[in-house]
Amino acid sequence: MSEIYYATSTGPVNIATLKYWGKRDEDLNLPTNSSISVTLDQAHLRTLTTASCSSKFETDQLWINGASYPLDGARSKQVMADLRSLREEIENGDSSIPKIAAFPLHIVSENNFPTAAGLASSAAGFAALISAVAKLYKLPTNASELSKIARKGSGSACRSLLGGYVAWEMGDLANGEDSKAVQIADKKHWPDMKAAILVVSDMKKDVPSTSGMQLTVHTSDLFQYRIKEVVPKRFIAMRKAIIEKDFPTFAELTMKDSNSFHSVCLDSYPPIFYLNDTSKRIIKLINLLNQSAGEIIAAYTFDAGPNAVIYYEEKNEKYVLGLLHQFFSHLGGWESSSFNPKDAVIPESFPLSSLDKDVYSQGVSKVILTQVGEGPSETDDVLIDLQTGLPK
Amino acid sequence: MSEIYYATSTGPVNIATLKYWGKRDEDLNLPTNSSISVTLDQAHLRTLTTASCSSKFETDQLWINGASYPLDGARSKQVMADLRSLREEIENGDSSIPKIAAFPLHIVSENNFPTAAGLASSAAGFAALISAVAKLYKLPTNASELSKIARKGSGSACRSLLGGYVAWEMGDLANGEDSKAVQIADKKHWPDMKAAILVVSDMKKDVPSTSGMQLTVHTSDLFQYRIKEVVPKRFIAMRKAIIEKDFPTFAELTMKDSNSFHSVCLDSYPPIFYLNDTSKRIIKLINLLNQSAGEIIAAYTFDAGPNAVIYYEEKNEKYVLGLLHQFFSHLGGWESSSFNPKDAVIPESFPLSSLDKDVYSQGVSKVILTQVGEGPSETDDVLIDLQTGLPK
Repeated sequence: MSEIYYATSTGPVNIATLKYWGKRDEDLNLPTNSSISVTLDQAHLRTLTTASCSSKFETDQLWINGASYPLDGARSKQVMADLRSLREEIENGDSSIPKIAAFPLHIVSENNFPTAAGLASSAAGFAALISAVAKLYKLPTNASELSKIARKGSGSACRSLLGGYVAWEMGDLANGEDSKAVQIADKKHWPDMKAAILVVSDMKKDVPSTSGMQLTVHTSDLFQYRIKEVVPKRFIAMRKAIIEKDFPTFAELTMKDSNSFHSVCLDSYPPIFYLNDTSKRIIKLINLLNQSAGEIIAAYTFDAGPNAVIYYEEKNEKYVLGLLHQFFSHLGGWESSSFNPKDAVIPESFPLSSLDKDVYSQGVSKVILTQVGEGPSETDDVLIDLQTGLPK
Repeated sequence: MSEIYYATSTGPVNIATLKYWGKRDEDLNLPTNSSISVTLDQAHLRTLTTASCSSKFETDQLWINGASYPLDGARSKQVMADLRSLREEIENGDSSIPKIAAFPLHIVSENNFPTAAGLASSAAGFAALISAVAKLYKLPTNASELSKIARKGSGSACRSLLGGYVAWEMGDLANGEDSKAVQIADKKHWPDMKAAILVVSDMKKDVPSTSGMQLTVHTSDLFQYRIKEVVPKRFIAMRKAIIEKDFPTFAELTMKDSNSFHSVCLDSYPPIFYLNDTSKRIIKLINLLNQSAGEIIAAYTFDAGPNAVIYYEEKNEKYVLGLLHQFFSHLGGWESSSFNPKDAVIPESFPLSSLDKDVYSQGVSKVILTQVGEGPSETDDVLIDLQTGLPK
């Protein structure tokens, strides 16, 4: 029987603090503005992917959490073609290495979190897939270069090729060769960044991100000002705040950019709403917390959905998780954290009694307590059966 | 007993289609942008006010719906002073007329709609008060001139001095003398404009308009672009659409400006939310209606609160009220209209079965069916007891 070549890698989720919204080139996924994100710890949110290839496989195939998916979408085919092309270059330059670039690929992925929760699973998925195939093909390509391939698969996925604090530089070139992810700082630079994710129950999204962002590009008057005037300045200021570990500035910019992104969604025609009444109550809680703390100790941000991601520094966990525990202690997710509810402190001036606890506890289905994390990493896990080439 | 001088006038509600949001001068209520509104029929929404004065009254006093209010706020005092000053000019020029400018005023007002519903009651109130006092004082002042006084009382109130389709020209002068309401077209020009108001139940507003708009002025990046680039063009286009009775254009601009206004609220820091999940469902219904009708036949607009005002032309009532009746037939307000539910037509392609009727029927407490209306009008009603000078 022909040999099966295989390799396994992980891919992390990233949550933008300066949002990507708008493509200037839809085929190449080139953005209208640069963006910034924090890569999250893979202990809580990651995709694990084994990439394998063999002459005996019939066609490229993908399995995610046991379900089979065709790999015939334009974006997936582009990603595969780019990776194969890099492998072919190596094979063409060295006749001693096996010629596997043309072999069909079997890709097997598993997420350690619910796919449907709207938690950037496609970013983690593309990052793991590309990292696994790059390992399988023994590509010498660095993460920023691979991020350009990921970008073509799913724009924000490019940021998941790197750990820590990541910028996606929009670039200028028409071919997208300078539109890639770069690391602003690694996890160790500012390791005490924590993230509390509140998964908000909601009906299915009305408007998927891709069509939503292009509706904004084409119909929002305010959008042009956002990408030309607001984001470029904010990008510089946020990068500086990360380098200087200036949490209040980082947090204020993060909240303002979340607001700005949802503003241009609302300014689209017809308007797009991703925040619901639960999201708005969470925003209010965080604002009240910061006011009562006398400084900004927590930052909310919302992607194209109602889930809240709240960034804070470990030293303020007693306040931030203390407050969230007040309203969401009944939900799953606390057990995975080292937070002890006994340590909770509610700032004295927090107007707890003025908030209807029943109302403010509504609408959230799960808490995920995590932190800044590393980029994709190779592992020895093998998700395929090496005899059959199918998922184990 | 000394004589009581009195006069009575009405004041209408106006609902902006191009929104006023932001003051460039807080004392004079000078706006950062021009705005446009439709004055609504007083059969459904109006304030009726009797203004009286007498040497025997002790102090300026106001009663609204039977409750007594002091007239000692800075804005009310300014309005009274301006009106008295105009009367004094007349008295000084003609010694034959009674010297009543210095007499204390008793003002008695009644609204024919619930004050607390967030339905621009202060605009109707100031318009009625100013019109009644102007009549009492026999001021020769025209409505646009009176609108400058109303503006100092409550910015958007200035538009209620005129009927039909009204522009509030922001003006350039620092003293505000050119910041006034002018009529774009009277009711007769385009009489088939109808308005359906959906009163949305909500908790008390988090942020009152005055502090909300100044938060936006001072913190929203997108706001500057709205007032400098977006609104000036939209103002010209909307005025033209009114003059040409071009409903689809008028409606699209109205919806876009509502979206834009709520966008800059959301872009404020901390963000301001006036739309709730019920408002968003109403927006969706109207968008679906327009899509299924194949043209824009209805326009939603939302002020600083969750209530929806839906403008449409009488010829499309069977579609617009037909759709609203589908979801809100259980509410009060239908009986005052000539609409017969038997005439309802739902466009064939409207995706009625895909909308959860229980969900879409939620959150609205009352329907008000009205239309474009006239400005303040004098009446023979008298709300004060001419013996006591107190409310009847």
